[in-house]
Amino acid sequence: MKIFNDLADFTTDEIRELLELANRLDAHPEPQALRGKVLALLFLSPSLRTLASFQAAMTRLGGGSFVISPGMSIHGIETRPGIVMDGAAAEHIREAVPVIASYGDAIGIRAFAERKNLEADMAEHDFSALTSLIDTPYINMESAMNHPCQNLADWKTLDDLDIPANGGKFVLSWAYHPKALPLAVPASSLYMAAKRGMDVTVLRPEGFELPEPLMQKARQAAEASGGSVVETDDRAEAMQDAHVIYAKSWSSTLHYGDKLADQKLRTGLEHWCIDEPWFANARDDCRFMHCLPVRRGVVVSEPVLDGPRSVVIHEARNRMLAQMAVLYQMLGSET
Amino acid sequence: MKIFNDLADFTTDEIRELLELANRLDAHPEPQALRGKVLALLFLSPSLRTLASFQAAMTRLGGGSFVISPGMSIHGIETRPGIVMDGAAAEHIREAVPVIASYGDAIGIRAFAERKNLEADMAEHDFSALTSLIDTPYINMESAMNHPCQNLADWKTLDDLDIPANGGKFVLSWAYHPKALPLAVPASSLYMAAKRGMDVTVLRPEGFELPEPLMQKARQAAEASGGSVVETDDRAEAMQDAHVIYAKSWSSTLHYGDKLADQKLRTGLEHWCIDEPWFANARDDCRFMHCLPVRRGVVVSEPVLDGPRSVVIHEARNRMLAQMAVLYQMLGSET
Amino acid sequence: MKIFNDLADFTTDEIRELLELANRLDAHPEPQALRGKVLALLFLSPSLRTLASFQAAMTRLGGGSFVISPGMSIHGIETRPGIVMDGAAAEHIREAVPVIASYGDAIGIRAFAERKNLEADMAEHDFSALTSLIDTPYINMESAMNHPCQNLADWKTLDDLDIPANGGKFVLSWAYHPKALPLAVPASSLYMAAKRGMDVTVLRPEGFELPEPLMQKARQAAEASGGSVVETDDRAEAMQDAHVIYAKSWSSTLHYGDKLADQKLRTGLEHWCIDEPWFANARDDCRFMHCLPVRRGVVVSEPVLDGPRSVVIHEARNRMLAQMAVLYQMLGSET
Repeated sequence: MKIFNDLADFTTDEIRELLELANRLDAHPEPQALRGKVLALLFLSPSLRTLASFQAAMTRLGGGSFVISPGMSIHGIETRPGIVMDGAAAEHIREAVPVIASYGDAIGIRAFAERKNLEADMAEHDFSALTSLIDTPYINMESAMNHPCQNLADWKTLDDLDIPANGGKFVLSWAYHPKALPLAVPASSLYMAAKRGMDVTVLRPEGFELPEPLMQKARQAAEASGGSVVETDDRAEAMQDAHVIYAKSWSSTLHYGDKLADQKLRTGLEHWCIDEPWFANARDDCRFMHCLPVRRGVVVSEPVLDGPRSVVIHEARNRMLAQMAVLYQMLGSET
Repeated sequence: MKIFNDLADFTTDEIRELLELANRLDAHPEPQALRGKVLALLFLSPSLRTLASFQAAMTRLGGGSFVISPGMSIHGIETRPGIVMDGAAAEHIREAVPVIASYGDAIGIRAFAERKNLEADMAEHDFSALTSLIDTPYINMESAMNHPCQNLADWKTLDDLDIPANGGKFVLSWAYHPKALPLAVPASSLYMAAKRGMDVTVLRPEGFELPEPLMQKARQAAEASGGSVVETDDRAEAMQDAHVIYAKSWSSTLHYGDKLADQKLRTGLEHWCIDEPWFANARDDCRFMHCLPVRRGVVVSEPVLDGPRSVVIHEARNRMLAQMAVLYQMLGSET
Repeated sequence: MKIFNDLADFTTDEIRELLELANRLDAHPEPQALRGKVLALLFLSPSLRTLASFQAAMTRLGGGSFVISPGMSIHGIETRPGIVMDGAAAEHIREAVPVIASYGDAIGIRAFAERKNLEADMAEHDFSALTSLIDTPYINMESAMNHPCQNLADWKTLDDLDIPANGGKFVLSWAYHPKALPLAVPASSLYMAAKRGMDVTVLRPEGFELPEPLMQKARQAAEASGGSVVETDDRAEAMQDAHVIYAKSWSSTLHYGDKLADQKLRTGLEHWCIDEPWFANARDDCRFMHCLPVRRGVVVSEPVLDGPRSVVIHEARNRMLAQMAVLYQMLGSET
């Protein structure tokens, strides 16, 4: 494996193999597997789980890592192409990325969407501009539309909890948040659940529809896997017999990149805070999933988040295990 | 060992065993002992020695660590319970701590006292609120009233210097500092010296008495160990035949949490800067100890700090060795 | 090896041995060589390549490292000697450096020139003040006038590219930059190329002459190695038949420490941006070297930097390999 960028690049069998590997490495540690191997970690956007879990993953496999984020240095890092660098920035990303990559056997890169233009973000213009600079194996640690490490961890969580692949009902629900957030998690989680074979319902208010190409990609995956994908703004219909609700706030796609219009649209949607009444007609053991960080009392009520439905810590720990499997396949065979 | 929080949780024999282990690991490195093991390091308060020495300790034992501090991320971390998170903070400590802990085989946590209410700080309300969130083995890297890694290192330093346990005179002295500082080091050092069997004199100006429950805890330890604990504001009396002076500034306990009253009380105490005349009637080889960081010319004079009495660098290096022993006992037997 | 501070401390044979070791470690990794060994990394000045490449180097050899930079802590670090510390800084470099060093088997230190007084900087007053505090083996990660890790990496790059030692023409050229930058890289690169036996031409505008003692040191090295050192402000003469141009901006030595006078002197020198016409009478395969970070369109044109002449990424990767060799010699024989 040279690139881990999108679950769509892997067959379901390959994903299942990664998850078996994750389980095996959890049960039977291999602290020599990646000895002497280096993972470069480049964060152009903030992180807590990803930052910690990748470092932990490399240590558990006997290797190591280093972290670079622009805030660590007074060298500002310029990202604009073709610019005359006579301002504050002393270094351009065109040197920084290949150099950082050259110190690693692989590199993880995080760069959130610019969120000015939906087509550019859907095409992953910014992330591709970075990865086009390197030949090093790389891992997408969250880009405009992808978060494959989160997706792999979530798939594992669904497996761990014995939530059925075929026949399991997965509700991907928009939730209220004061800010316009990226699409990467909802977009890629939608695809993950569909590829796993689940019956996926996207629950969202008007103006927050996911982009049609993403819905289309998910429907195709569902067709192949025996799952299904539907979309609604009717909460009761969505939650009916649900096995799991995967909550996440995201930007209005109707007003993508327009902060004021997005703010206006979300005003009055504060009741999209997942609380216990949401589960009235779900399965008794319906689970609550969220990728974290999550705002208590805003995105989800405290009783739900702290109660038995919530598996958010389990999901977060699975980030580390999923990433260990990816790193093992990417770096382990070189020795 | 699952928890390293307070020297009071250990018998003197257990402490001596830890110190023998520290010496053994210094003389005979075991760079494979903790291979593949991960220590999570969570700093909710600033650090230099602790930050560096724990990372070095894990490397020396063949494992690794990762560091999280709130300043590393634009995600602010909310600590207040039961709050609706509609402000700046994107993550709550109730998720952050269990998640970070889940990536480690153990977690070290530093969280200084809030210093509003002495009873709350004495009860370790804040630190307990954090550790109650996790099942992971943990190490107290300094809380409101405890700093067990410092204490263990200091005990080792006293041993290294052949300062007698029974019959050794240990002067814990308040020193001037422009700011009101936490009680963790004086409180826990007092207990350490008493438990070691030393004759402890607490030397402090009026208004800076250590809280009675801490004095009581130390007196009980002294009773069991054959030591003693007294308190005075008379420098000559305190320093008479002293083997060691352990200097530290701390908050006024009379005006705990009241910055203005504390400032007023310490004005005029600038002569509580440990300089050579303090040692006039001490033993010739009386040592100067301090946990660092220390303000030169304020807490201690340059000639004392740079002279042969000072063992502050020795103490600081012992932090690493003491922590190696703790980590070895906590993580080494799992393999 | 206890100290790696200046290429001048090593014979040419010793340097060649280090470079052979670097090549061997690249071809045949030794991920157990430094197991359990710790490198302390102290950055008193900003870094990207050095920060990343030293961490990667230690991991590749099976050891580890930790990083301390003053910005990581709210403890400000005081550097002035003999001061009463009643201001913001809570810790003095006289404690901080020995403590940090005590956790490492070796320490790397970066401290840029103060750039107030050329003689003081030439004498390495500040860096010597730091290293005089420790007995630990140390590596200069860039001081006022030295950057030996960069020099070793650049020597290796010249070897890798088969650029002749004797008979190879090395042009060290000043380049435009909006700010007055340190002399460490030009000063030590000049020496490196001369010691390698090359024919060195220093190309710079008036007022930017390198200090005579540095020129003298380089001329002596050239005499011993069969190389030569000349100086000019005539670009065509300098570039004639050049094998390589090593570009770098630096402070005016005429107005050292005087920012306004330096600014005035460099105004109008914006055409000292290395672009393709510079290479008109150079060898066809003349290379472009730069230590990075570099300002595109200011120090060098985009076509040159992105074109086949540029070996800047190769140079940067060689930082890691050169440092692995240094670390291996410094720490590998202790076991």
